Amino acid sequence: VEIVGLQGRDRDEPIEASHPHLGSTGLRIGDALPAGLDAVFLGLPHGAAAALVPDLLDQGVAVIDLGPDFRLRDPADYPRWYRFEHPRPDLLERAVYGLPELHGDDLVALRDSDVRIVASPGCYATASILSLAPLAHAGLLDDVVIDAKSGVSGAGRESKPDMHFAEVNESVKAYGVDGHRHVAEIEQELGLQAGARLAPVDFLPHLIPMTRGILAACHVRTTRPIDQEELDKLYHEAYDGEGFVDVVAAPPATKHVTGSNRFKVHAHVDARTGRVLVLGVLDNLVKGAAGQAIQAFNVVFGLPESSGLEQLPLAP
Amino acid sequence: VEIVGLQGRDRDEPIEASHPHLGSTGLRIGDALPAGLDAVFLGLPHGAAAALVPDLLDQGVAVIDLGPDFRLRDPADYPRWYRFEHPRPDLLERAVYGLPELHGDDLVALRDSDVRIVASPGCYATASILSLAPLAHAGLLDDVVIDAKSGVSGAGRESKPDMHFAEVNESVKAYGVDGHRHVAEIEQELGLQAGARLAPVDFLPHLIPMTRGILAACHVRTTRPIDQEELDKLYHEAYDGEGFVDVVAAPPATKHVTGSNRFKVHAHVDARTGRVLVLGVLDNLVKGAAGQAIQAFNVVFGLPESSGLEQLPLAP
Amino acid sequence: VEIVGLQGRDRDEPIEASHPHLGSTGLRIGDALPAGLDAVFLGLPHGAAAALVPDLLDQGVAVIDLGPDFRLRDPADYPRWYRFEHPRPDLLERAVYGLPELHGDDLVALRDSDVRIVASPGCYATASILSLAPLAHAGLLDDVVIDAKSGVSGAGRESKPDMHFAEVNESVKAYGVDGHRHVAEIEQELGLQAGARLAPVDFLPHLIPMTRGILAACHVRTTRPIDQEELDKLYHEAYDGEGFVDVVAAPPATKHVTGSNRFKVHAHVDARTGRVLVLGVLDNLVKGAAGQAIQAFNVVFGLPESSGLEQLPLAP
Amino acid sequence: VEIVGLQGRDRDEPIEASHPHLGSTGLRIGDALPAGLDAVFLGLPHGAAAALVPDLLDQGVAVIDLGPDFRLRDPADYPRWYRFEHPRPDLLERAVYGLPELHGDDLVALRDSDVRIVASPGCYATASILSLAPLAHAGLLDDVVIDAKSGVSGAGRESKPDMHFAEVNESVKAYGVDGHRHVAEIEQELGLQAGARLAPVDFLPHLIPMTRGILAACHVRTTRPIDQEELDKLYHEAYDGEGFVDVVAAPPATKHVTGSNRFKVHAHVDARTGRVLVLGVLDNLVKGAAGQAIQAFNVVFGLPESSGLEQLPLAP
Repeated sequence: VEIVGLQGRDRDEPIEASHPHLGSTGLRIGDALPAGLDAVFLGLPHGAAAALVPDLLDQGVAVIDLGPDFRLRDPADYPRWYRFEHPRPDLLERAVYGLPELHGDDLVALRDSDVRIVASPGCYATASILSLAPLAHAGLLDDVVIDAKSGVSGAGRESKPDMHFAEVNESVKAYGVDGHRHVAEIEQELGLQAGARLAPVDFLPHLIPMTRGILAACHVRTTRPIDQEELDKLYHEAYDGEGFVDVVAAPPATKHVTGSNRFKVHAHVDARTGRVLVLGVLDNLVKGAAGQAIQAFNVVFGLPESSGLEQLPLAP
Repeated sequence: VEIVGLQGRDRDEPIEASHPHLGSTGLRIGDALPAGLDAVFLGLPHGAAAALVPDLLDQGVAVIDLGPDFRLRDPADYPRWYRFEHPRPDLLERAVYGLPELHGDDLVALRDSDVRIVASPGCYATASILSLAPLAHAGLLDDVVIDAKSGVSGAGRESKPDMHFAEVNESVKAYGVDGHRHVAEIEQELGLQAGARLAPVDFLPHLIPMTRGILAACHVRTTRPIDQEELDKLYHEAYDGEGFVDVVAAPPATKHVTGSNRFKVHAHVDARTGRVLVLGVLDNLVKGAAGQAIQAFNVVFGLPESSGLEQLPLAP
Repeated sequence: VEIVGLQGRDRDEPIEASHPHLGSTGLRIGDALPAGLDAVFLGLPHGAAAALVPDLLDQGVAVIDLGPDFRLRDPADYPRWYRFEHPRPDLLERAVYGLPELHGDDLVALRDSDVRIVASPGCYATASILSLAPLAHAGLLDDVVIDAKSGVSGAGRESKPDMHFAEVNESVKAYGVDGHRHVAEIEQELGLQAGARLAPVDFLPHLIPMTRGILAACHVRTTRPIDQEELDKLYHEAYDGEGFVDVVAAPPATKHVTGSNRFKVHAHVDARTGRVLVLGVLDNLVKGAAGQAIQAFNVVFGLPESSGLEQLPLAP
Repeated sequence: VEIVGLQGRDRDEPIEASHPHLGSTGLRIGDALPAGLDAVFLGLPHGAAAALVPDLLDQGVAVIDLGPDFRLRDPADYPRWYRFEHPRPDLLERAVYGLPELHGDDLVALRDSDVRIVASPGCYATASILSLAPLAHAGLLDDVVIDAKSGVSGAGRESKPDMHFAEVNESVKAYGVDGHRHVAEIEQELGLQAGARLAPVDFLPHLIPMTRGILAACHVRTTRPIDQEELDKLYHEAYDGEGFVDVVAAPPATKHVTGSNRFKVHAHVDARTGRVLVLGVLDNLVKGAAGQAIQAFNVVFGLPESSGLEQLPLAP
């Protein structure tokens, strides 16, 4: 794999001008896309990829889109959650939701497709969906509360008063109480696993005073009682063959995955309340973003799934 | 009010030896309790206050206990949650749970009692109970998930590997998944407000990389549908007369109350899921500990409720 | 003392709109200055106060200016360090540099002056000058390196990429290597104490991943050898009568003064190198800003020096 | 290179028991050293390696020692700085100080030695020595103040009150004012570069509220005036061929190197004071510890210097 070009908005400068830590790579951010590409990775505001992708497909380029423009299957979800009409609803059902643990076969099938679009999921969705997929698949999800905590890098690099160090540090707050966009894809994917439309998921995100990491705490009322042994079996069967997922025996900390493409999950039956608690952690900038996109790319292009993703977590 | 003595375990030293920031007070930690006291504030491991308090009562001293030994009314809760048999179950029903917003009249009534015990609640309990009391009182609590986030000062000053800066910083994790002790008093007090035993509360605490502050996110399924207008009215009626409680129109951050005795609460109907979300924040070391104890002391001794507690929040 | 009005740029809104933690004060930010004032506190970009103050003086209002416009005595310093010509150089020698510990008599003398301007010093200058004034006054300063560390609140609330939580957190950097403006007043005030122009001071500021606090580490080569006993005597004689200064026996942490108007200083002879090390800490938003301005106001208006400033440090 | 065993004190457990983030490696901490080793990496309390190494040398094992037992050439420095008599002073002059940038040839020469000891330097020493070596080598160091700032991971994992999150967070302090041990090797190595004994270095370390990273701010008075052009030339000539060192044009932040084996340095002439300021940053756990030990091992064993060290910095 060779990086043949980087393109940014109105930029033509060495990468260290905006990303000093990458200075030793010698990369440069240009202002135009090179020709003869096999694949592009897109990270664009919503709506921008939808406009750009058809032309890329015409050129035979595979698209790994890190934005939301091809994640939702129902065109009606775009005006509802993103306030734009999707210009190419026909492509929505041909794009593959880029969670290799759930859609590995679909990603492999893209190799022979003339519409190669991977809709790479974001951080909250990945953490939530991977946490609950085994329960959904077994038809066990009844009532779901997802209380998620994220470091601030999930909000991007833009300077905003809310992101000022003095506001974030030594503080925690919830946001998005009127409904976070990512709940749409969480409900879509869990519904697909369950084979049925689920009741609306109660999803509440929080901003935590740290840079990287997401923890999804999923409080689940199951459709029937389940004991710890069955729960353990469910998660191990689902994930023991997955290279980037660890089913762990104690509540995981986000620090256990920082800088890596790993997802760690812990499922627990609370005998007192009868609820199941599932705790999932990932690094929102790796398994929740760029790392997962590379993982899906590897699958589509027939490379080892872990190519470029071998980095161990960086702790402390 | 005069501080006539401080007593610590095996200590006899100026306060700045262990608390450098208090050096200018000239206080000294002694190794014995002075005589002729009107009131003592206790902060002891569970079981220790239960052993000590009867003798203090005999001396006519009012006790403000910041530990759990007199918070629970049912003696059976002590072996269950704290693993000790309570030596004086007769005192449990005479102690007053020191939440002035809910038990103000009981605190006033202590003035004429020969058993003056204030069982001052801790941080998680205060945040949870004050967040949900108006809904409980109205008989609206059906199913309750409390997902709480706390700074590390809630765990005390003891050196433990889990509290090392390098472990806590840039990380978040849940703990106490097998049931946190404070859920006992949360269920007791919400049940008292409701006038009925409630279904078990799902309470999950998290450790957040910050020093002070608690946020309780309460996800509630109500016994009947309720709209935003009725919800607002419920909280304003409950708290508009309370000097330390603010019903706020947007999700509060813990930084909005740091260093003060204030509790801020925001209640929101989620039209999509039908749930009610209540977000409450406080400083775990003030309204969740020492400040609240002083507030209750003020009520018991007929002082203005805010004596010694006028400090505004310290932000940023 | 009564706060009769707050004025902000283009604002007319309750204070909680921009400062949610102050909501309980009921204050409002208006867009015009009320009439009939005794004193105003100004916090303005450099140059703005110089333009505004003459008119305030004509109205008989005392001015406590938290900006730099009246701190420097030499008019030539304004074009050099702040790139503007001072419009009223005649006022510079009549303004009083608002460090009550060094200029207490001058502040008292303002009571009878028709030009009542207090030029309140900022955080770096206060920490540096108070750390070194006793050595300067004794004629002992030869070569001075001040290596200062500041929390980010010193840079104000403006959103800038450098202040984004993700940039600041888990990182430290020096800045202002070409000369920080505050060195001008540091050299002025230490020179006044010494009664002679000193060699240029090497002042290097750092941005630390915390919100509040400044630590000035001053590495001094003295004009003659000095032992620890003499050094201790020098500092205790200078500061033992000062209500807000503590000479401490161990290196202080900034956390020991957070939220208070206190300055803590530790002076140490390094027998190996022959240098003297002085470590001074303060809260840049209190003793390094608003608190010190109130302290000087108290002195000018004949109030107890600690009025409104009794708050103990908030730790942890 | 194959890791054939890990040994810890009184342990026999999977690595994830103490280091959860490394669970996916499948490594196990044993309680005995395997046989047939080519090399061992030691991280031991001072004095312990000195006792252990002779036996390892007898077995033909190369030793990469991350502790101080073989860093100092003068046996008298051990009782002075570490309070023990060195049991094998004869080995001190045969060990190589493991800074590949300065002692690369000596490391290569170890291949043919029967005493293969690499004394791998620690974080403060590496940052200080690499920052100043070009000036020392050119005979330009006259008076040196090193004001260093470190994240807390430099102090190890042990639970101590000073390392509690609530003590470290939102605070900065200096420590070791009576002389930090690492100054001994800093003076030794800079003296070797200069070819002469230097005046004592004033070295002051600080604890910063972050986990990883060291910044050394070196304030230097030179033996003769030097301009920026000559200074730049000096640093580029010294380091442009080094794979892990970047001479940068602006003050570097520690975040620019986190998780990598890189050292970034910026040198600046302060025209006003005539001093030279050198700012060096590294990750204390990589280039300041394990990474550097691997780098030296690679050189000794004839592997590419960057084997196992290709990881880019992790920012934000």
